[in-house]
Amino acid sequence: MGISTVGIVSPKIVVIGAGAVGCYFGGMLARAGHDVTLIARPAHVHAMGANGLRMEAKAFDEYVRVRASTEISAVKDAQFVLFCVKSTDTEDAATQALPHVAPHAVLLSLQNGVDNAERLRRLLPNHGVASAVVYVAAEMVGPGHVKHRGRGELVMEPFLGSAILTQMLLAAGVPVEVSDNVRGALWHKLILNCAYNAMSAIVQMPYGKIAMGDGVQDVMRDVVDECLAVAKAEGVEVAGNVDAAVRMIFETMPGQFSSTAQDLARSKRSEIDYLNGLIVRRGAALGVATPVNRVLWSIVRLLESKHSAVG
Amino acid sequence: MGISTVGIVSPKIVVIGAGAVGCYFGGMLARAGHDVTLIARPAHVHAMGANGLRMEAKAFDEYVRVRASTEISAVKDAQFVLFCVKSTDTEDAATQALPHVAPHAVLLSLQNGVDNAERLRRLLPNHGVASAVVYVAAEMVGPGHVKHRGRGELVMEPFLGSAILTQMLLAAGVPVEVSDNVRGALWHKLILNCAYNAMSAIVQMPYGKIAMGDGVQDVMRDVVDECLAVAKAEGVEVAGNVDAAVRMIFETMPGQFSSTAQDLARSKRSEIDYLNGLIVRRGAALGVATPVNRVLWSIVRLLESKHSAVG
Repeated sequence: MGISTVGIVSPKIVVIGAGAVGCYFGGMLARAGHDVTLIARPAHVHAMGANGLRMEAKAFDEYVRVRASTEISAVKDAQFVLFCVKSTDTEDAATQALPHVAPHAVLLSLQNGVDNAERLRRLLPNHGVASAVVYVAAEMVGPGHVKHRGRGELVMEPFLGSAILTQMLLAAGVPVEVSDNVRGALWHKLILNCAYNAMSAIVQMPYGKIAMGDGVQDVMRDVVDECLAVAKAEGVEVAGNVDAAVRMIFETMPGQFSSTAQDLARSKRSEIDYLNGLIVRRGAALGVATPVNRVLWSIVRLLESKHSAVG
Repeated sequence: MGISTVGIVSPKIVVIGAGAVGCYFGGMLARAGHDVTLIARPAHVHAMGANGLRMEAKAFDEYVRVRASTEISAVKDAQFVLFCVKSTDTEDAATQALPHVAPHAVLLSLQNGVDNAERLRRLLPNHGVASAVVYVAAEMVGPGHVKHRGRGELVMEPFLGSAILTQMLLAAGVPVEVSDNVRGALWHKLILNCAYNAMSAIVQMPYGKIAMGDGVQDVMRDVVDECLAVAKAEGVEVAGNVDAAVRMIFETMPGQFSSTAQDLARSKRSEIDYLNGLIVRRGAALGVATPVNRVLWSIVRLLESKHSAVG
């Protein structure tokens, strides 16, 4: 079966990890009439089976018809797998999916962090694996109910079939750019996350208040410098102007708490090992000092251990 | 009036800032029969006036007769002023005391931090001012009630009258050493505080648990290295083996929370500006990078601002 044939018959899409990101992009494709299956937890599947996926977006508020399943085997006919689990769950989810993924399927990582595609390739060496950088503000507000707060673009690396998926997404109202420097864009986003996520999590304060704190601008400068040094040693060309972007965030999202802050507040394991923790590991491997990322990572790990001890 | 005469008539001692440190050392002198006045808040003064100071020490549990006053003017006849306020209150307390302090009085700073004596000398340039390093585990458990958990020594710099005070303290059961490197000993203690206080405060965990955290040993190593570099640039010869002392603390006091942790837990202003904050300021002035001390200081400042905003 060739890719072009699949393209004509409207390729099936399966979302693994139907959190806010998976529901938003899967939902947009489903809303445009595509065959989308969301693999999720029972409460979500139940709600979506009964009423569809509620997409409370900026421009519309609709119940969108989707397929939903609790079974990972539902991935079996997918042409495109939108892989949207947290970075902490990449290996688990990929290992469970592996026996069911069709040989011609492409897994597209829509995750935070910079190493998910390489971790997926290690587990699925014979499948197509690609990365996309996700720019969306969205959250789950209840079972089968995603709230979209802003943006909603993807920057995707080219892969076999990317033209088809790009067309589908564009037609569904999702701006997509295919870029040969997705790695640099993922690092750009990683660095912003390193500058804000841990800090917001540790003090449980939003970006605007953090940025006003004594010495915080210097701390963020240190974080960014360490990250850029690691990126350089890795041979990554970080996309865009990171410094300007760091400033933009507290100016444009002063009330926002980081995902890491939300995880800690809910006593959930955060992605810190794939944010500041990744910088620390890569820095150590490459001989680049990362003391400020390390202290942020260490503190978040201590807070996680404290929460997991009590809850 | 000569010092020797004053020595013979048993010099009067006044404690400014009758917290745990002031109550312990003032109490030990009072218990040995000396004329000791504790300047404290009304609730403490009332309790001490009614029953004396309760000293719940390791070796005894007694009500000790002391003078107590809420009035700073009670300092007026003091030969020795044990200056025991928090580092944040040094200027306020010294300014209030200034009009009342006798010309021959010596102010002995029994405080955390390394710059209190120099700050006192700035405000009282014509008085004797000296520093002591305090080694005691004690806390106030209620009005007029100090609990002593361990140690209780002083290392004092020599000053006019230090021999008299030393004799009084030794006779009262307080081990004292007169040292010409009190500055180095204060820095030693400062560095230990920099390694532990902020971390314990930020995560609200005791030393033993902190020390087990991912990357924490490396973080503490970074903190110590930055502090030693600043000390060196200042021309300070840091006393003792700081690295060994850092290890000792979590091994010998695994259940202890830092004073900074206790301050934050009670929504009180901490001494962080005179611990990691001092390292940051001195480092900036001397051209020594202190990024790890800075991030710890910044986070504690944010947590303080958060608490003061709500309480």
